[in-house]
Amino acid sequence: MTTNVLGYAAKSATDDLAPYRFTRREPRADDVAIEILYCGVCHSDLHTARNDWSGTMYPVVPGHEIIGRVVGVGAEVTRFKLGDRVGVGCMVDSCQHCAPCKQGLEQYCEGPATFTYNGSDRQDHTPTFGGYSQNIVVSDKFVLQIPNGLDLKGAAPLLCAGITTWSPLRHWQVGEGSRVAVVGLGGLGHMALKLAKGLGADVTLFTRSPGKEEDARRLGADHIVISTDEAQMKAVEGQFDLIIDTVPIEHDLNPYLPALALDGTLVLVGFLGNLMPTLNTVPLIMGRKSVAGSLIGGIAETQEMLNFCGEQGITSDVEVIAIQDINQAYERMQKSDVKYRFVIDMASLKE
Amino acid sequence: MTTNVLGYAAKSATDDLAPYRFTRREPRADDVAIEILYCGVCHSDLHTARNDWSGTMYPVVPGHEIIGRVVGVGAEVTRFKLGDRVGVGCMVDSCQHCAPCKQGLEQYCEGPATFTYNGSDRQDHTPTFGGYSQNIVVSDKFVLQIPNGLDLKGAAPLLCAGITTWSPLRHWQVGEGSRVAVVGLGGLGHMALKLAKGLGADVTLFTRSPGKEEDARRLGADHIVISTDEAQMKAVEGQFDLIIDTVPIEHDLNPYLPALALDGTLVLVGFLGNLMPTLNTVPLIMGRKSVAGSLIGGIAETQEMLNFCGEQGITSDVEVIAIQDINQAYERMQKSDVKYRFVIDMASLKE
Repeated sequence: MTTNVLGYAAKSATDDLAPYRFTRREPRADDVAIEILYCGVCHSDLHTARNDWSGTMYPVVPGHEIIGRVVGVGAEVTRFKLGDRVGVGCMVDSCQHCAPCKQGLEQYCEGPATFTYNGSDRQDHTPTFGGYSQNIVVSDKFVLQIPNGLDLKGAAPLLCAGITTWSPLRHWQVGEGSRVAVVGLGGLGHMALKLAKGLGADVTLFTRSPGKEEDARRLGADHIVISTDEAQMKAVEGQFDLIIDTVPIEHDLNPYLPALALDGTLVLVGFLGNLMPTLNTVPLIMGRKSVAGSLIGGIAETQEMLNFCGEQGITSDVEVIAIQDINQAYERMQKSDVKYRFVIDMASLKE
Repeated sequence: MTTNVLGYAAKSATDDLAPYRFTRREPRADDVAIEILYCGVCHSDLHTARNDWSGTMYPVVPGHEIIGRVVGVGAEVTRFKLGDRVGVGCMVDSCQHCAPCKQGLEQYCEGPATFTYNGSDRQDHTPTFGGYSQNIVVSDKFVLQIPNGLDLKGAAPLLCAGITTWSPLRHWQVGEGSRVAVVGLGGLGHMALKLAKGLGADVTLFTRSPGKEEDARRLGADHIVISTDEAQMKAVEGQFDLIIDTVPIEHDLNPYLPALALDGTLVLVGFLGNLMPTLNTVPLIMGRKSVAGSLIGGIAETQEMLNFCGEQGITSDVEVIAIQDINQAYERMQKSDVKYRFVIDMASLKE
């Protein structure tokens, strides 16, 4: 039986988000039905609601940092039971057959993957609606266990901001003794600091704002470098094995390339667009350096990250809001006025 | 005792190269004195002679694809004896202490490395003069053995064009089953085809010129893709683990990024400058792809490449010239009118 659900949706690129009623499918044999308790607010939610990347299908119900409780399971589901604390991230399905899927890299599914919102279900082709809603129905393969002891509202952003920074840390083999720098201190950046520190790296924050030092140190930065200060930038030349660049808007990468060590990589996780000003190749060639990109992370890797956060007690620093405040939260997020992630308390979404 | 030497030098950015007399130092205890038999002609020679990269110290004697015969050894030299067939590439010294040097990556020496020409000797600070000359004196650590059986004139370009393409092939672990593409079919590109094929890769040439197909196949390409043909480019999306981009002038990388497989790398080995048109980050992020650079190769790696070429019978396709033809050769090289490398027969350099 389908379920009637209340959520918040944008009906066009210029409309505010507003209450929206829709239905969730009857759980299939491999589905988990989840009552949503919290949902993080990601820059992608805003970009999609406003059609910044084009391709938005309206109405769109954003939200892909979902935390909830299992309220129903299909007949074939064995890994979850009623009452389990679970999470859903950016994907709800993938082809399961292509080379990336077979490697556990569903985010690069050649299908492509089915995203949690603004996608379309692989079986019935209905639109996918995200976590700004009372509940969701998701194939068990894409449901994550939330370790006991992790604060649920602080865990919500792990499903996107957490895995998006964890995946490159693991792919580029960060561990004890690694020298990692993070560009930008927002939702992704603050998770990058915590996770890199948790992995034993020596962690530096690049920032344009001297005022962020105290917070950055609390979040895990061993060093702060003011990226507009030439002397400070000069002093860190050749220092970093990995730079995670979380900045979501157009910005100049050239100042950071000299800070990479031989064979170092600057990985972009936040910015989809044209690199302007353009890259100069000299530092790349003179130190066998790379500029790379990375997209969220696979499902197994997401569970690994959640388990790691459970062991280390790592969650996101969040500001909890009512869903009625979502449009104001978008305005504040665009001004980077949040420390460091808005999370919607879904108890606010009453009939 | 120093040696009087005849070479060819540029005396300014606008002068043609012309005969020039200078002295080579008395061999030190670790030095090898080499009579030069052949010297390849590299784009860097021309760029340096014309001060394209600025920083040229005149007069400059270019040439860093040097093949010769040992005519003298210092007291401490044990690896070489009179009459040995030897080579000298782009470097004649490095600090030997920094982290890159200790890894055998002297090309990335933090010192930096002492280049074969337009450098300055680490001990007496005299200018280094390259291989467009009768002989050269080089520290034994930077002298390479040329395997028996390798044609000497065809071996000369291995010292720069060969190692510049070999090093990324090895660093990115190309072997049986790897899918490698090469952009550009000049001195570097034709070596990339031969070496990638020799390593067992499935090799593709990207070219704008349909007329190069026959030659490319002879040189080792399994497939030819016309890079201006959208249908052909579409057909190779997601195909390549490594793309070696040998183009020495400004060009657009964006058409090649979709051709990389998940986790693939496009490595620039020929172009120092600004990437115009600018890179779009979407294909990087959507497939964890990288754009990297690579500079020549280390000394141990150069010997490894020479030994590999000895086993496989790989040499460069060369057009032998007299040194009196060098200025005309530069003009032709700028028009890509050479198949595929000019090599100077130093017997032409008579008193």
